[in-house]
Amino acid sequence: MATYVYDFAEGNKDLKDLLGGKGANLAEMTRMGLPVPPGFTITTEACRAYLRTGSVPAGLFAEVQEHLHLVEARMQKNLGDPRDPLLLSVRSGGKFSMPGMMETILDIGLTDSSVVGLAAQSGDERFAWDSYRRLIQMFGRTVFGVPGEEFESELAAVRAGAGAASDAELPVAQLQDLVQAYKKVFHAHTGRDFPQAPHEQLFLAITSVFQSWNAERAVLYRRQERIPQDLGTAVNVMAMVFGNRGPDSGTGVAFTRDPATGRRGAYGDYLSNAQGEDVVAGIRNTVGLHELAKLDPPSYRQLLSVMERLEQRYRDLCDIEFTIERGKLWMLQTRVGKRTAAAAFVIAAQLVDEGTITLDEALQRVSGEQLAQLMFPSFDTSAAPTPLTTGVPASPGAAVGAIVFDSAHAAAADRPVILVRPETNPDDLPGMIAAQGILTSRGGKTSHAAVVARGMGKTCVCGADELRIDLATETVTVNGTVLHAGDVLSLDGTTGRVYLGAVPVHPSPVVRYFEGELAPANDPLLAAVQRLMTHADHVRRLGVHANADTGADAARARRFGASGVGLCRTEHMFLGERRELVERLIVADDDTERDAALTALLPLQRADFVELFEAMDGLPVTVRLIDPPLHEFLPALEDLTARVARAEALGLDPGHDAVLLAAVRRMHEANPMLGLRGVRLGLVIPGLFAMQVRAIAEAAALRVAAGGDPRPEIMVPLVGAVQELETVRTEAESVLHSIDGIPRIRIGTMIEVPRAALTAGEIAHAAEFFSFGTNDLTQMTWGFSRDDVEGAFFGRYLALGIFAASPFETIDSGGVGELVRIAVERGRAARPDLTVGVCGEHGGDPASVRFFHRAGLDYVSCSPFRVPVARLEAGRAACTAATSDSR
Amino acid sequence: MATYVYDFAEGNKDLKDLLGGKGANLAEMTRMGLPVPPGFTITTEACRAYLRTGSVPAGLFAEVQEHLHLVEARMQKNLGDPRDPLLLSVRSGGKFSMPGMMETILDIGLTDSSVVGLAAQSGDERFAWDSYRRLIQMFGRTVFGVPGEEFESELAAVRAGAGAASDAELPVAQLQDLVQAYKKVFHAHTGRDFPQAPHEQLFLAITSVFQSWNAERAVLYRRQERIPQDLGTAVNVMAMVFGNRGPDSGTGVAFTRDPATGRRGAYGDYLSNAQGEDVVAGIRNTVGLHELAKLDPPSYRQLLSVMERLEQRYRDLCDIEFTIERGKLWMLQTRVGKRTAAAAFVIAAQLVDEGTITLDEALQRVSGEQLAQLMFPSFDTSAAPTPLTTGVPASPGAAVGAIVFDSAHAAAADRPVILVRPETNPDDLPGMIAAQGILTSRGGKTSHAAVVARGMGKTCVCGADELRIDLATETVTVNGTVLHAGDVLSLDGTTGRVYLGAVPVHPSPVVRYFEGELAPANDPLLAAVQRLMTHADHVRRLGVHANADTGADAARARRFGASGVGLCRTEHMFLGERRELVERLIVADDDTERDAALTALLPLQRADFVELFEAMDGLPVTVRLIDPPLHEFLPALEDLTARVARAEALGLDPGHDAVLLAAVRRMHEANPMLGLRGVRLGLVIPGLFAMQVRAIAEAAALRVAAGGDPRPEIMVPLVGAVQELETVRTEAESVLHSIDGIPRIRIGTMIEVPRAALTAGEIAHAAEFFSFGTNDLTQMTWGFSRDDVEGAFFGRYLALGIFAASPFETIDSGGVGELVRIAVERGRAARPDLTVGVCGEHGGDPASVRFFHRAGLDYVSCSPFRVPVARLEAGRAACTAATSDSR
Repeated sequence: MATYVYDFAEGNKDLKDLLGGKGANLAEMTRMGLPVPPGFTITTEACRAYLRTGSVPAGLFAEVQEHLHLVEARMQKNLGDPRDPLLLSVRSGGKFSMPGMMETILDIGLTDSSVVGLAAQSGDERFAWDSYRRLIQMFGRTVFGVPGEEFESELAAVRAGAGAASDAELPVAQLQDLVQAYKKVFHAHTGRDFPQAPHEQLFLAITSVFQSWNAERAVLYRRQERIPQDLGTAVNVMAMVFGNRGPDSGTGVAFTRDPATGRRGAYGDYLSNAQGEDVVAGIRNTVGLHELAKLDPPSYRQLLSVMERLEQRYRDLCDIEFTIERGKLWMLQTRVGKRTAAAAFVIAAQLVDEGTITLDEALQRVSGEQLAQLMFPSFDTSAAPTPLTTGVPASPGAAVGAIVFDSAHAAAADRPVILVRPETNPDDLPGMIAAQGILTSRGGKTSHAAVVARGMGKTCVCGADELRIDLATETVTVNGTVLHAGDVLSLDGTTGRVYLGAVPVHPSPVVRYFEGELAPANDPLLAAVQRLMTHADHVRRLGVHANADTGADAARARRFGASGVGLCRTEHMFLGERRELVERLIVADDDTERDAALTALLPLQRADFVELFEAMDGLPVTVRLIDPPLHEFLPALEDLTARVARAEALGLDPGHDAVLLAAVRRMHEANPMLGLRGVRLGLVIPGLFAMQVRAIAEAAALRVAAGGDPRPEIMVPLVGAVQELETVRTEAESVLHSIDGIPRIRIGTMIEVPRAALTAGEIAHAAEFFSFGTNDLTQMTWGFSRDDVEGAFFGRYLALGIFAASPFETIDSGGVGELVRIAVERGRAARPDLTVGVCGEHGGDPASVRFFHRAGLDYVSCSPFRVPVARLEAGRAACTAATSDSR
Repeated sequence: MATYVYDFAEGNKDLKDLLGGKGANLAEMTRMGLPVPPGFTITTEACRAYLRTGSVPAGLFAEVQEHLHLVEARMQKNLGDPRDPLLLSVRSGGKFSMPGMMETILDIGLTDSSVVGLAAQSGDERFAWDSYRRLIQMFGRTVFGVPGEEFESELAAVRAGAGAASDAELPVAQLQDLVQAYKKVFHAHTGRDFPQAPHEQLFLAITSVFQSWNAERAVLYRRQERIPQDLGTAVNVMAMVFGNRGPDSGTGVAFTRDPATGRRGAYGDYLSNAQGEDVVAGIRNTVGLHELAKLDPPSYRQLLSVMERLEQRYRDLCDIEFTIERGKLWMLQTRVGKRTAAAAFVIAAQLVDEGTITLDEALQRVSGEQLAQLMFPSFDTSAAPTPLTTGVPASPGAAVGAIVFDSAHAAAADRPVILVRPETNPDDLPGMIAAQGILTSRGGKTSHAAVVARGMGKTCVCGADELRIDLATETVTVNGTVLHAGDVLSLDGTTGRVYLGAVPVHPSPVVRYFEGELAPANDPLLAAVQRLMTHADHVRRLGVHANADTGADAARARRFGASGVGLCRTEHMFLGERRELVERLIVADDDTERDAALTALLPLQRADFVELFEAMDGLPVTVRLIDPPLHEFLPALEDLTARVARAEALGLDPGHDAVLLAAVRRMHEANPMLGLRGVRLGLVIPGLFAMQVRAIAEAAALRVAAGGDPRPEIMVPLVGAVQELETVRTEAESVLHSIDGIPRIRIGTMIEVPRAALTAGEIAHAAEFFSFGTNDLTQMTWGFSRDDVEGAFFGRYLALGIFAASPFETIDSGGVGELVRIAVERGRAARPDLTVGVCGEHGGDPASVRFFHRAGLDYVSCSPFRVPVARLEAGRAACTAATSDSR
């Protein structure tokens, strides 16, 4: 027969699959000889058996009974003893912590008779009866599903009757009445009496934890987080200990180092003569842990010693919960503790200094997400401004601007603005683009505003429900303050805080360090960042390039550690004043006009490339030939249509608008994303690609003549068939052959159309390198356009758990990633020395960088700002076999 | 040393790879003992060696010399003999026949001295000198690239000087002058004299054939036809024989059966006292082959006997070229002959009757393309109307309508129209959609008009260059006749003929047979079709279903042999009067309004399904839930914008247009193809899918109650992730459980998003069947939208050879097909009893049907009209190991 119950002394911290996280850590502490209240863990296997069959596996309760006897023996108390009852807590605890499951039932074992014993033993009748009424309430609600508000209304009635302002003021007699009232509520809803057999309470609670695995919210959470639905939860049963037995008792939480800064030394809060829930309820203020040194020096010393041993055992910052009952210290929980991004870097470096972990391990203790957080600007809160209100921190960053209430005003504003809306919808997109930040009063992290803002990298606080926004009067009222359009707000997208007025923005010191403006000496954070980045660069196999279109961008990327430009988008060189030339190119009626426009563009493009090659001298610069459809350079069809219709209705001559409208109509496409763009343009518009190739080659020749070392590469976008690439290559090579004094220029292709990935074996015959364009590849593999769907249904998809993350933020390894694997394998099989990189936005996303490492790419390319993040994650990926995203 | 030269007696018809098609057939005839002039074939291997190294392989010319001696011995004449010279022909001949290569040089061996011998021997001095000047001209042009017009202008000058109306009237003296003039042209261009050594003529001609393999047009043709570029061509060298040696000589072509109707018995044309090129030049009229029976009975009998033996050997219709020289019959060429579609069916059935081939083989002798041709309506030409003009037959069918010159008139017309344009561009799309047929004066089979019309299945004749179209005066002039808008034309898209007036359209007898209106008895074509279709149905493994949205369509499909409906598009049920309900659904501000619209739609959808299930009683009907974006049911953004702008400019109230415009704007998408549609709609709009599922189930219940056997299946469109399908399945199952008296209804999904194919293993866990939507799958795998690109660049892509065929007509087996294979493999691995079909338009395309057979699908579904084509091709695919599209 299977063993379904483990005494705490039987397990250890590595048995998380079987005992859950909480149970494994309790077992580890018990094995270490630390003072853990006696108890046992019912395994996840028992839960799985229950879920499979619908009934508790045979022998489980007998096993529980046996282990209970051991607990009773060690505590020298018996469950349900009317004189001095043993009380138990029952807690769920899966491998991964998970909201939506039943968390805890305390004080199991209280009955009509044992409550009297507890009162006598504790000397606190009020405490005993209050504990009993709480048990009935918690048990009724979580085990039998009695609606919580029914208990609440009884409580309110008793409180009103007693004239008590709070529960804490209720005298014993009223608490006893309340127990009777609660028992009636319980009976009315369940058709049975509140169980007076303590064992029955225990067994029902255990079964109920099993069932809560399939609670709707838990199922949805697992679907969203991609946690398997069949793991099951463990159940921890532990003897209750009490911190509210007098001044020599108390309860606290502590960290082995400061989780905010990483500073060495124990850090925590203590509340004497209180239970854990009192800390949460905030009835009294806690004191710092050092106060315990004065109150109870032996316990304090013991606690410090326990914490030191836990750090050594876990080789990391631990957080703990503890209780002191009449001078005796009890450890209730421990785990590797959460920490801020800054602390993560500092602690990792410290642990290396202390000889506890290696540099490889230290890299696993920090993440690209944390580094990215450290690179956002933040508000200078040294003046300690008071937040006006706080909402959901939906998209990080610090934004300051004047309030506007709609898109039109946002787009027209001549100073920075904050778009304030009850919620956003696709109509608000222009305003969101124009604004510094977005503030809404409704919706959470998957609302339209949140999803779109994160996609844009724009600061957003949403669901700030204290705001009352009146669009008609253009006012927003918050706790009595009335704000108008034009009033200045500051939004902290990292904390969700909203400030009135302009809070000074504080540039990130980590960015200033990367820029070479700050030295790491004497700054523990910068020193830690320097140390870990150096190690990441040392171990990583992936190269990190940057997406940059100008010399300035390229220079910045180089300072941030990029070893090349992986994507230069040439169409950005067609904007501004040059737009007029593009218009000429498009409306050209014949070859002569078109050639004239191309000839005029040539020297402009060439000058751009000279600047770029100079900034990246000695490093590769991959130039993508023009990609977007040409009509993107013309006014929008809808605007032109309205202008011409208006003019005609008034009998006016629409003039040049009519000419433009004809061109726009001719080039109009129902789905421009899937239209005449990329290599198709190059094959249809004579001379366009040749002009670009000439500009690249002539710029390289100029740099060579100036003593430089330009290393351009030519990249053809949107290729789906090798025949397209062959045709462009033939034309490009003939241009290159005609220009003297240039280095060898490699020609390769984007892999951004699913067909290119599928036929990579053929395409590699004509390509010296591949660069995955994972934005387009994601759009085409899923069949949705980012512009259209992020707002329309991504929120709903995230809420339904169809996406774990937006596939535009983190690469969809199962679908898009499968095409990446296929293309790498087939491409390299056909051309073993093929260089393979990625230049979509995923190149700077931590989980995606790890994926690209595993897929065997040679480099990632990302925006200059993300280069350090990619370097760090490339290092992390290289020095771990099992990366953390394997789930 | 390799053998590079094969005497005709050494090869056979199966050596096409080595000897080319022409050489293998000459060898076969020689081996059969038929009277073939002596000769030999230089292998494709020799050509490949030449192309690889740039020089003729060692020993080749020595081998040629040896084989030449054999020819001289057999002919008892020597090459270059000044008294009685042997003359040779040199012809290219690859495995596949191919335009753009050098075809033929005749009369090799004529020199200044041997021309005299030829004159003496033939007794025709004019003939000898004319042959010599033709040799210089042909040799100069094809071997040395001397521009043809230089020879032509000399000829014209001589003709003018002699006052001759045609070349045939030139006297000997002028021909001799011409030879001198030609030799001067030759020298001026080549810097050398015309070769007087006959062997040099031969060797140069052979080398020149090798080189012509890489002629630009040949390379492009091979790229377009996906013929490997490295096959090389063979070269056939044969003794010349002459049909112009007097009344006992002549030349002819013949077929072993009538290639037009398939009627048994030799069939051909004969011209006495003439050479082959005279037949082509049309100088005199040929006579029927039976005339030869009177002119030369022994040769006629011998010819019939040869033809009978060839048919037995090739087991098929053969065509031949022959010459009779002074009463002696010579066979110059044979091959399996081309035939009309009708003849193909009749001959295949005859050969089975005659015991020559099996029914399996007979299926390989016909094709779905041929069957499709037989199913087009045709013009009743019994009144023998004279075509007005003839253009390129770009898209088959018969169209009758009044001339219109632009889209606006086409769309506004209240009677059938023919759109007449010099050429078309995307602006003309609305007109092309509205018209019965399209006629252009410019462009070939890859022009915009041709590509788009074929895509629409619309009749099109293009490049009718005798038309002079004047759009300003709205007239079209053709050979003096002036036509105006409104004049009626008839277009035959199969022949390219254009008739003035309405030619009666003749429905296809094959269609009438499928419809049950004609019996096959006494009609050889219908009997043959019946016999081959019966066999195809007997052997095929693939099921054939139809795409049908109405009871009438379904009934027709059933008559055409469909065994189910593979695709019912429910959105078609939202059109017409119901559009108003859809508008209400879309502009609904709250759940109540939306539910009201859905409730009103329910009975309408249900009634449609009842009709459909009745028509397909006992057979599966796969119903696809709504797929297109809802704004497709609203007016176009551009139209509404213009209307509202116009009203506002005039100070009028735009009324309901303003409400609609707001809704359209809200739902506007930059790329609707990649937007909120398919399963996404179902997950975002509450109740929409549930209403459709309810309508299906209630309709099934009604049919069951009426004693029917409805077999609906529910298909979810645009799924990309299993989580989408699971969510819809849960909702659908709860609706189905709530309805009594329905059969079990399977739930499956379209596979039309690349990600669905890649993750088919996961999706199969939630899908009981897959149906490939190869239209969308093609769009997303290639990353282009059919609407946008067919006109914009498909023509150019076909011309450049990037496409062999439009991937929307024939499935792209390398790219899209790869996803099909991946999905079938992964889907079946996860769910072995998974049903897999296809419902895109490819389901009715012959080459695609064969692909789907090989990919292991269970069925194809296509438009009712294509059902017989799919049945035939499914049969052909099943009974052949190596199908004809393996190239």
